[in-house]
Amino acid sequence: MDPVLLYDTTLRDGTQGENVNFSADEKVKIALRIDDIGVHYIEGGWPGSNPKDMQFFDLAKKADFKHARLVAFGSTRKPGIQPDKDDNLLALLDSGTSTVTIFGKSWELHVEEVMNNTLDENLAMIHDSVKFLKWNKREVIYDAEHFFDGYLNNREYALQTLTAAIEAGADYIVLCDTNGGTLPFELEAIIADVQNYLEEKGFKSPEGAPVKLGIHTHNDCGMAAANTIAAVRAGAVMVHGTINGYGERCGNADLTSIIPILSLKMKRPSISVDNLKKLKSLSRYVSETANLVPLNNRPFVGRSAFAHKGGIHVSAIMKVPRAYEHIDPGLVGNERRVLVSDLSGKSNVEYKVKELGIELGNNGYDSKKIVAEIKQLEQEGYQFDVADGSFKILVEKFTDQFQPLFELESFRVTIEKDKDQPCTAHATVKISVGGKQEITAAEGYGPVSALDNALRKALDRFYPDLDTMRLIDFKVRVIDGTRGTAARVRVLIESRDQERIWNTIGVSEDIIEASWQALADSFQYKLAKEEKIRSSN
Amino acid sequence: MDPVLLYDTTLRDGTQGENVNFSADEKVKIALRIDDIGVHYIEGGWPGSNPKDMQFFDLAKKADFKHARLVAFGSTRKPGIQPDKDDNLLALLDSGTSTVTIFGKSWELHVEEVMNNTLDENLAMIHDSVKFLKWNKREVIYDAEHFFDGYLNNREYALQTLTAAIEAGADYIVLCDTNGGTLPFELEAIIADVQNYLEEKGFKSPEGAPVKLGIHTHNDCGMAAANTIAAVRAGAVMVHGTINGYGERCGNADLTSIIPILSLKMKRPSISVDNLKKLKSLSRYVSETANLVPLNNRPFVGRSAFAHKGGIHVSAIMKVPRAYEHIDPGLVGNERRVLVSDLSGKSNVEYKVKELGIELGNNGYDSKKIVAEIKQLEQEGYQFDVADGSFKILVEKFTDQFQPLFELESFRVTIEKDKDQPCTAHATVKISVGGKQEITAAEGYGPVSALDNALRKALDRFYPDLDTMRLIDFKVRVIDGTRGTAARVRVLIESRDQERIWNTIGVSEDIIEASWQALADSFQYKLAKEEKIRSSN
Repeated sequence: MDPVLLYDTTLRDGTQGENVNFSADEKVKIALRIDDIGVHYIEGGWPGSNPKDMQFFDLAKKADFKHARLVAFGSTRKPGIQPDKDDNLLALLDSGTSTVTIFGKSWELHVEEVMNNTLDENLAMIHDSVKFLKWNKREVIYDAEHFFDGYLNNREYALQTLTAAIEAGADYIVLCDTNGGTLPFELEAIIADVQNYLEEKGFKSPEGAPVKLGIHTHNDCGMAAANTIAAVRAGAVMVHGTINGYGERCGNADLTSIIPILSLKMKRPSISVDNLKKLKSLSRYVSETANLVPLNNRPFVGRSAFAHKGGIHVSAIMKVPRAYEHIDPGLVGNERRVLVSDLSGKSNVEYKVKELGIELGNNGYDSKKIVAEIKQLEQEGYQFDVADGSFKILVEKFTDQFQPLFELESFRVTIEKDKDQPCTAHATVKISVGGKQEITAAEGYGPVSALDNALRKALDRFYPDLDTMRLIDFKVRVIDGTRGTAARVRVLIESRDQERIWNTIGVSEDIIEASWQALADSFQYKLAKEEKIRSSN
Repeated sequence: MDPVLLYDTTLRDGTQGENVNFSADEKVKIALRIDDIGVHYIEGGWPGSNPKDMQFFDLAKKADFKHARLVAFGSTRKPGIQPDKDDNLLALLDSGTSTVTIFGKSWELHVEEVMNNTLDENLAMIHDSVKFLKWNKREVIYDAEHFFDGYLNNREYALQTLTAAIEAGADYIVLCDTNGGTLPFELEAIIADVQNYLEEKGFKSPEGAPVKLGIHTHNDCGMAAANTIAAVRAGAVMVHGTINGYGERCGNADLTSIIPILSLKMKRPSISVDNLKKLKSLSRYVSETANLVPLNNRPFVGRSAFAHKGGIHVSAIMKVPRAYEHIDPGLVGNERRVLVSDLSGKSNVEYKVKELGIELGNNGYDSKKIVAEIKQLEQEGYQFDVADGSFKILVEKFTDQFQPLFELESFRVTIEKDKDQPCTAHATVKISVGGKQEITAAEGYGPVSALDNALRKALDRFYPDLDTMRLIDFKVRVIDGTRGTAARVRVLIESRDQERIWNTIGVSEDIIEASWQALADSFQYKLAKEEKIRSSN
């Protein structure tokens, strides 16, 4: 079967979603992860409309992409302006990507009533802009915005906008269901008509083959994925979408569904079998970076996607999983969950423990028991896949191998505010190290900062070389927000010294206690590493 | 066009979803709301498997349903048992509903490998059970479980299971995509073949018309709604689904999408235009009762379903809304929202301010100046597109219209931890209302919860009707995590009372101060609404 080209627009159209915001630096990290699973195109932003996006393209130049082409996005030239004088088109060139996507208007209503433009000038804008970019040796993807609505309103004009782009040399023509109101059976019929029209008129792609069509859908009817699939069956060779379907209003087509459907159900090559296994972790990475709660029932990659509730016998699932599962969850890096007992996981833990360099030994704890304890903690909101440092300490505790390098005696944190004055926070921390106690106090920018400073000060007497250690990231996630201010909170801390980066976690109804756990684990982890180096010297 | 019968299974299949649980009493209340919008069938539960479900049917007998028929659900008889001795079938009769749904196995794999049954006995079970229920004067809906998988595995046998039910007098044959793995084009082809087969064999419905088919889908490929629509186009006259798509794994077909698609896009009569306007509030009612956070980007009924972010000119939306919206949001009881971020201009602010019911007036502040101030705050980490409540207060402050209904004098929060004991948090809050001061203290699950409790207690003396107000979501986001524990933090709080939901925001380096800002805004917003209601009465 013919391959399908995947075009990710998480970083551009995805950020149109309410609450979806990324810094330029986060965008680069996400782009590298998307690249890593083998997506073909990554749309990075709209340099002409947003200075942050230009910053992204500058940063991205230094990054090493293995599969994907980076794409800059923009609009056709402004009415009455020459292409080489148009700021937006120049910004596209400045971004330095070898591929650019520009969108133009297909719908009479937008041209005339919204833009106050003429139909002819709109066609000229499309033609000139594509041609200008082709002159400048770019691969050009043309997004026909509102194509399906435009077609239903004035078929002939909508088709003319496409031919304006094709005649100017566009490499791909992407039909967009911008308002998301089109149903699959309508979309199929329209695409078939477009293909007939282009064939009858003798239009070819730059290589002389049929014009290469793409599809870009939105989920306002819950049909974004279905429409994408329908378009591929009708002949589209490029699909646009976002990770987790993030996007404006009801979102874009969700690549985390579309990729496995293409690969596993329709046998259309897109990414490799090995890369498909990274899909769940990519989904999680993007939701974590956006600080959005991952959707449990998201098809394929959600936590509940292969969760079986009462009534089904575990042994039956084990015996004939395909009786209850439409695919093997492992194919997309997900896992079966039976909401009663623990079953798998033993081998995972053994693998992970080995990776961290811990000997399980024969301390009365076997890995099965550890799995059960971890599952319990995960139930409470811990997430050890993003907190190696805490996981290491946990396993050491389970196997009686943990040697605390300090112990907490007590802490007090006070936050005070008077009228319009800023808050002040100070903390008192009392610890003991090898029987010796130390009590100190410190201020901070807030309660956690005050605790951090006080702990650092107290440890300094025993471990003077903590200067090289820095906390580089601090994330807070409310786990069950529906309990309002009594919700449980998960704190993730990322720390580094000159050699390493490590992550620790804390969970509590009390945000300060959760922060303390993550903070204490981070210091314990660092000190243990130092001890090991010292004793091996 | 022919009408489509709506069959709701929120109370049965919906409760298979992780975290979806209702008491018998809550189920009755939900059933009445579903009835109220004109759904035709409401599946209440499985009396044979769950005593709570029997309790529901007892309670429901006393309730007054206007449109819907209540349905009891169960399985075919057990192997080797006479129908009139089968506990499950007897429980169905006991439930007292005039319509019953029973499911049977269509897939060889389930019959033989999972159930250890014979293919012939399975056919007899289907036939006998339907016949027994028909003898007992019930309308019978037959759910062909795993039909599509069964068909692909052994077409002939899957079709025989249907004819076993039809020959016994089943009123409706519902084809189920139980594992959710079927794609629309496959489903369409199979339904067409089923219809041909039944026609060729001369099967009729009890009224002598073609056999009446229904469709029941799951969302494991994100295709539940698309499959339902495809089935209706292929001739199905009954659709099964749940409110908000709640259900096992990735959920069931979502009636909150399917109903408006049938009515508005496919012009197939199902519920009245007036009832369609209740759809959003029904969706919200069910998520509130389930205590699940409503999905903002849910098609048609989600809070973001008609929310417009940057890049689009507000004046254009006002002028030609259909240029940006696939339907009028009012048709499903939803509303347009213009998000305040990326405020490219004056008109956005003016629109938003009008939406919130504020008069800008001539208080020396023009909207241009407000835009500049908002941009500055957004630079610092505020995000007003997700905090309408705080935005309203902010604009009132800018225009000297803000009347604080309480003022903070001071607060103190203390968090204490001793060794392995859990943290304790307590707060003291001093406020003044109209010159009168009140100081109170309270404990909480953490510092923010303690502050919340103390503030509530202090306000109670002046505003005793705050009981109806609840904080339903609490989100924390670290803005510049790279500063470690000194990072700035953004707190978002979502609150509700019986009528409204509102969002407020706070930003500070001190997480407690940020929480306080969001908390205080939430209470100010609520109290201002109450004042307005009071003064207009």
